[in-house]
Amino acid sequence: MWTNPLKPYDILSADQVEAIHEQAMTILEEIGVDFLHEQARDVFKREGMAIDGDRVRFDRAFVMEQAAKAPQIFELQARNPARNVMLGGNHVVTAPVYGPPFITDVERGRRGATIEDFNNFDKLAQAIDQIHCAGGTTVEPEDLPLGTRHLDMLYSHLRWTDKPFMGSVISAENARDTIEMASIALGGRDKIEKTPAVISLINVNSPLRYDDRMLGALLEYAAAGQPVIVTPFLMAGAMSPMGLAGTVAQQTAEALAGIALIQLIRPNTPCVYGSFLTNTDMQSGSPAFGTPESAMGILASAQMARRYKIPFRGGGALTSSKGPDAQAAYESMMCMWPTIMGGVHFILHAAGWLESALLASYEKFIIDVEQLRMFEWILERGLPVDEEGMAMDAIREVGPGGHFLGAEHTLRHYRTGFYRPWISTTENFDRWNRMGAKPVEQVAAEKWKQILAEFPDPGIDPGVDEQLTEFIAKRKLEIGAD
Amino acid sequence: MWTNPLKPYDILSADQVEAIHEQAMTILEEIGVDFLHEQARDVFKREGMAIDGDRVRFDRAFVMEQAAKAPQIFELQARNPARNVMLGGNHVVTAPVYGPPFITDVERGRRGATIEDFNNFDKLAQAIDQIHCAGGTTVEPEDLPLGTRHLDMLYSHLRWTDKPFMGSVISAENARDTIEMASIALGGRDKIEKTPAVISLINVNSPLRYDDRMLGALLEYAAAGQPVIVTPFLMAGAMSPMGLAGTVAQQTAEALAGIALIQLIRPNTPCVYGSFLTNTDMQSGSPAFGTPESAMGILASAQMARRYKIPFRGGGALTSSKGPDAQAAYESMMCMWPTIMGGVHFILHAAGWLESALLASYEKFIIDVEQLRMFEWILERGLPVDEEGMAMDAIREVGPGGHFLGAEHTLRHYRTGFYRPWISTTENFDRWNRMGAKPVEQVAAEKWKQILAEFPDPGIDPGVDEQLTEFIAKRKLEIGAD
Repeated sequence: MWTNPLKPYDILSADQVEAIHEQAMTILEEIGVDFLHEQARDVFKREGMAIDGDRVRFDRAFVMEQAAKAPQIFELQARNPARNVMLGGNHVVTAPVYGPPFITDVERGRRGATIEDFNNFDKLAQAIDQIHCAGGTTVEPEDLPLGTRHLDMLYSHLRWTDKPFMGSVISAENARDTIEMASIALGGRDKIEKTPAVISLINVNSPLRYDDRMLGALLEYAAAGQPVIVTPFLMAGAMSPMGLAGTVAQQTAEALAGIALIQLIRPNTPCVYGSFLTNTDMQSGSPAFGTPESAMGILASAQMARRYKIPFRGGGALTSSKGPDAQAAYESMMCMWPTIMGGVHFILHAAGWLESALLASYEKFIIDVEQLRMFEWILERGLPVDEEGMAMDAIREVGPGGHFLGAEHTLRHYRTGFYRPWISTTENFDRWNRMGAKPVEQVAAEKWKQILAEFPDPGIDPGVDEQLTEFIAKRKLEIGAD
Repeated sequence: MWTNPLKPYDILSADQVEAIHEQAMTILEEIGVDFLHEQARDVFKREGMAIDGDRVRFDRAFVMEQAAKAPQIFELQARNPARNVMLGGNHVVTAPVYGPPFITDVERGRRGATIEDFNNFDKLAQAIDQIHCAGGTTVEPEDLPLGTRHLDMLYSHLRWTDKPFMGSVISAENARDTIEMASIALGGRDKIEKTPAVISLINVNSPLRYDDRMLGALLEYAAAGQPVIVTPFLMAGAMSPMGLAGTVAQQTAEALAGIALIQLIRPNTPCVYGSFLTNTDMQSGSPAFGTPESAMGILASAQMARRYKIPFRGGGALTSSKGPDAQAAYESMMCMWPTIMGGVHFILHAAGWLESALLASYEKFIIDVEQLRMFEWILERGLPVDEEGMAMDAIREVGPGGHFLGAEHTLRHYRTGFYRPWISTTENFDRWNRMGAKPVEQVAAEKWKQILAEFPDPGIDPGVDEQLTEFIAKRKLEIGAD
């Protein structure tokens, strides 16, 4: 993971933060949130909240009291302890794209994703230092049966990466399978209850509704002390109003309601305030990613999460483009800059996303990693104002009209002093032309193939592997028999 | 022009700003700057500075006293007064790429630029609202004679745009021609001395050297009260040290030396602290644009200019990529975000730049404008926390589980409430496919052709046109006779 030394950028004034907070509280008190799961409603009822059908209306002091129990920072362990990450504080953790049913690469084009693609994305996530978490449903392996594919996906994360990973959230049953497999791989349930070993993405069925399957998974994870990213799913104009401030208020109400539920199930369970907020293109009716609204939304949402001292997930390399072209890159960067400047703690969709999350791309994965490497350089190197950074010796040595290529200071630093591009070309035109005049997506295609060809297999303990394989076989039988 | 309501992002602490300032002062005092022009040295000599050959060593209090005479904000007039711009304060003025000898478009490919391309770039700058200044040498029209092409370029700016433009800086003679033509077009020398009518880019021949031709132009412009952007030309590692802080200190010393000269020639002449700062790729030996170093350099340089209360030029849509691909876009955005967050006042190279400034691109021009439009939206719309922005009526109206597409609030805002993309697609895959599956560079190609086909000619007063034509003819004869 990274450490972000930059002061987060406040797009809202303190008064505006309070106004949005007040509106979130009013929404929770006066409108309420639907919880389509009896156990969730019962928990709130026991605490004295007003229940009306599926609807729960909240007392604001109660919500704030619950939210305050969520830790400001927590550790998420990986199969390889060197890969453990911290969520919160000034740490930044990245994970690949999540969710696309389709995949593309420049040679084969757009097609349904398979478990082979899923394995490949795990291998890329494992091999690339700038990806800290293997992610969850990086692509939806549509060649596998729906009822059991979560087992194959979890196995892939555990076999091909030794980084932290994300759990299945389709149902309570899938969450139990996730927890079981994490327990097998990471030393038992006691150990993962002490330091959580799986983080999961629970989307709110916005506006203001939690559905039964997601709640089922949330309740399982909370009971096991495993962190959940509570993420309102907001395409403003459709799932929230066209007012961005109101959208952030609604998001805050939705996120805090879920976080309160988690804290009631098991106090101090780590959780994350999630944001997946962009606007609808009101002309095409489609969601639009990498827009000015999403950029401002990331900054404002991160600022709200800071108010509640809860780790924050948001942003990523988001775009509506259909291929790894200029649109894909400028939209991704339109989100990534505020993601970094906003002090986001968990960056889902940090690599590989295209076409409004319907399409994963091998080349876009690599292109996004070049951007992550640049941000990593800014965060890790920064702009040191010390003796070497000031380089007064070099300025004196070279003097007016000279050049610095041979200066002592340059010789000390030329190997590591500046960012070294990974796939970007800086060659002059003639040399670039002689080298094949490759556009960046072609360089990216060569890069991911090379990474897969040279994949550094993390290996797996044979005993653990056998236990996992047996568990999967047993569960497939049970599920198949349903 | 735009107004930037965002608080500029400070990447340096106050102490670090002072440390860099102190080093800049030490450079001016102890090392000094070479001025390869007798008149410039004489001016400094008269003021008691130490002269040694071409070298001028400065008294720090004297430099600061001179720099303090530069206005914090000034107006630059255009042929059409509605196009006048303010430089400084919280204003932002954009201009196209400056300098490339080559041009490209997706159909015709890379070739030498011509005056037709130059005219076309003026027409794009005129037609597109997000470009506020027509720029200077947008492309180098290599089909025209070197000695007189500045006259054709100036005519193009004055004929095809009614926006502010940039002067020729090749020599004192070219600067005089520029001032003369601006006087003809804008109502006489008295009028343009009162409110300046041409802004020019004077590069420092870094490190720490001003050459004779650029100084000749600088002295002419200063005497006429026309603003100059004093811009150290810094590829760190070659023209400045590999330490970024030291590079910013050297840049500050160089810029302040030039600004002091301008203030001595004519006190209170507006000028701009310019930055053209990136790093050399120490592996390829080529300049690298859109790097982490350039991003941090923009923020730090803008912060230094704020310390001196002098308007600042820096950033832009810079890249080393050879075509309008993903690299071009992510590198451009790597610069554009800090350009906006740093509160840059004059954004040269805001549109059309490729290949480290060797190549201008029609499609990149359009692609960059889409990014400018997004930033304009952020600056102009922002995230209003008011009744409409909070949209509590809509949240109440829709409630849990509903959707906002038909809400009263949405009906009030759906036409103008969200950013509307210009060339980006948000269409779903099937519709995008039916519409021709165009990558963004192809959409951009259609857009610039359409703009040129529908060019809104600003016209020109026939009397002024005749005077300009006569002046150009006379000067061509004189120069040809040299």
